Amino acid sequence: MKQKTIGKDIMKLIYLDHNATTAIDDAVLDAMMPFFQKQFGNPSSSHALGTFARQAVNHARKQVADSVEVQPSQVIFTSCGSEANNLFIQGASGYQKASRIIVSAIEHPCVMQPAKELTRRKNEKWDLRQLTVDDSCQVNLDDVENAMSEKKPKLVSVMLANNETGVIQEVTKIAEKARTQGAWMHTDAVQAFGKIPVSFPSLKVHAMTLSSHKIYGPKGAAALIVDKQLALKPLIFGGGHENGLRSGTENVPAIVGFGKACELSKIWMERSTTHIIAMRTILEQRLIEMGAVIFGLNAHRLPNTCYFALQDIEGETLVTQLNKAGFAVASGAACSSVYPGQSQVLNAMGVDTTLARCAVRLSLGRNNTQKQLDSFLKSLGAIVKDLRRLSSVTI
Amino acid sequence: MKQKTIGKDIMKLIYLDHNATTAIDDAVLDAMMPFFQKQFGNPSSSHALGTFARQAVNHARKQVADSVEVQPSQVIFTSCGSEANNLFIQGASGYQKASRIIVSAIEHPCVMQPAKELTRRKNEKWDLRQLTVDDSCQVNLDDVENAMSEKKPKLVSVMLANNETGVIQEVTKIAEKARTQGAWMHTDAVQAFGKIPVSFPSLKVHAMTLSSHKIYGPKGAAALIVDKQLALKPLIFGGGHENGLRSGTENVPAIVGFGKACELSKIWMERSTTHIIAMRTILEQRLIEMGAVIFGLNAHRLPNTCYFALQDIEGETLVTQLNKAGFAVASGAACSSVYPGQSQVLNAMGVDTTLARCAVRLSLGRNNTQKQLDSFLKSLGAIVKDLRRLSSVTI
Repeated sequence: MKQKTIGKDIMKLIYLDHNATTAIDDAVLDAMMPFFQKQFGNPSSSHALGTFARQAVNHARKQVADSVEVQPSQVIFTSCGSEANNLFIQGASGYQKASRIIVSAIEHPCVMQPAKELTRRKNEKWDLRQLTVDDSCQVNLDDVENAMSEKKPKLVSVMLANNETGVIQEVTKIAEKARTQGAWMHTDAVQAFGKIPVSFPSLKVHAMTLSSHKIYGPKGAAALIVDKQLALKPLIFGGGHENGLRSGTENVPAIVGFGKACELSKIWMERSTTHIIAMRTILEQRLIEMGAVIFGLNAHRLPNTCYFALQDIEGETLVTQLNKAGFAVASGAACSSVYPGQSQVLNAMGVDTTLARCAVRLSLGRNNTQKQLDSFLKSLGAIVKDLRRLSSVTI
Repeated sequence: MKQKTIGKDIMKLIYLDHNATTAIDDAVLDAMMPFFQKQFGNPSSSHALGTFARQAVNHARKQVADSVEVQPSQVIFTSCGSEANNLFIQGASGYQKASRIIVSAIEHPCVMQPAKELTRRKNEKWDLRQLTVDDSCQVNLDDVENAMSEKKPKLVSVMLANNETGVIQEVTKIAEKARTQGAWMHTDAVQAFGKIPVSFPSLKVHAMTLSSHKIYGPKGAAALIVDKQLALKPLIFGGGHENGLRSGTENVPAIVGFGKACELSKIWMERSTTHIIAMRTILEQRLIEMGAVIFGLNAHRLPNTCYFALQDIEGETLVTQLNKAGFAVASGAACSSVYPGQSQVLNAMGVDTTLARCAVRLSLGRNNTQKQLDSFLKSLGAIVKDLRRLSSVTI
């Protein structure tokens, strides 16, 4: 009963949190549906139901591969982006002599935590070097040089776009430097993919992570795209699926949906990017007029992300009040909400702690409208006015 | 076009391969559907969509926990059974001084391979001891004693029911022995769960693996059930989901479906077990009349599994011919079909290699009917007659 009531409220929410997750596209769900009940075979079975499931997985592998300009054999399906990031870091370290791993200070916890874990290994001396970013959330290329000259790295991982600020990193340049050192370079492209064009060969990386549920595909599917030369030790051993690199019965419906979402992402990107940028431009102008600071404002950013703070208005409070008013926004990265506290990204950018606590992230999607944002700004104005009045009364 | 044609044929297939995977139950799919598009939130988000998703995951956790008589906090959701088995073996070994790991010789590759992997670790001296089984596929309890007295084990893993023969192991007795040695005992209950009652406390194990897609739930969800005292190192590091033991955005629809499938499994087990046993009894009588050997015939077995061989009729050939005739059966474990060759299970049972190559597995489900099996036996008879005629001509 309680769940039903909440469910009703949700229907009215205006969703401005697309960097956390997205609803599945109609065409994607249509592609998935047959695989739940009619064509439900295990791809490893040799009868027709198995063969059909295997063909469907292979078709999806081709769709994913095409979307980032690689061969199907370069796609390793995993259950989520976190698994793919761990597969790179733990997997690539499995065949390397312990040395330096370099990651940016603004990586998602599913890159940062396995990187830290390497340094805790008994009998292996991994050293983690975090790359600094400037105040616009851009990785300092000078610091990349420093980090590599201090000690030769074996592994480097720098995300393509940051999940909080949306700031796009100079991955190709970093990859070129990593290659001169003989290091393996990985990029977590989970947030960038589907929002800006992503080409594996152009990025010059050895491995790249993609995820389905950020691009209007289902949860439960993701991929590590790999250079054919890359040697990886699996995280999950068993029946030898995914060319021995990821055992476990394939999540066929989710993989099929992921493939379809990849195919559609290009079309949707072309169709909606201009509209999303236009909406964000107006949004940010108005936020600035309200006195907001926009993080990474002048950096090269994903078109859909707006990360702002209104001095003295706590982010958490604003998220709660906006939720009551019918808007779904985030105070930080949803994926690390289980670790409450200050944003590590803003911290790395040198943002003052008091201001960082006021951070709120809006991430627009293809179905958002100008009318929704007008309504959002109206509600935001009223909430801020109320909160400022309350705090002045308290003082 | 090609896919569509195959799809049409599949519709007519009589499915007798429920140990490989199952179609999703209608009620399970109904429970999942809202979470694809309407209630699609990320459980880590703090707005109403996130809260609702979090509640749904918690509700499913309770359903899974109830089905095996544990507390919700003892359920760690993973993406598949292989991941859960790896989480136990790699995870428990992460906090143990290297010593002996004992597994039965008939374990699924997703237990056997990570166990073998431990022995390959640099700077750690893990020793793998495989428990022998008798000719009815039952783990020799005497060998359990031997294995433990030779060298004190730290980890023990013995499956609850074998995926090929369906033979049920004396897990409680082995767990009691493991406990006297201070070892952590795990059971892979993936095949048993949903087919026979499974109670975590009664089994006296420290950890147990369950999977959704074998019990008419979706692919993409599984669980490691753990004793509260068990210390595990995660396989996937990141945002700290699942109490820090399995990071990654939860696959909400799959988890919701898994929960519902667990809830329904008890009802269905009560409703269909008698019927399934009755069907299998007739089936096996007729197979014996045809000259078949039934593996594990007199052992305590899962009600639905029938693993047989007809001398001189190759299993692979039979599976192919039966598929053409409209029946989906397996020549061995689907999950390890990527490793072709002889069944390791039959090998461990001491089955003659020539006979082992003739093995075919039928695994019945709740929707199979006597009429379907009559039709199966008729087709089998005709195919066998043809094959025998052909081979006599060839000779």
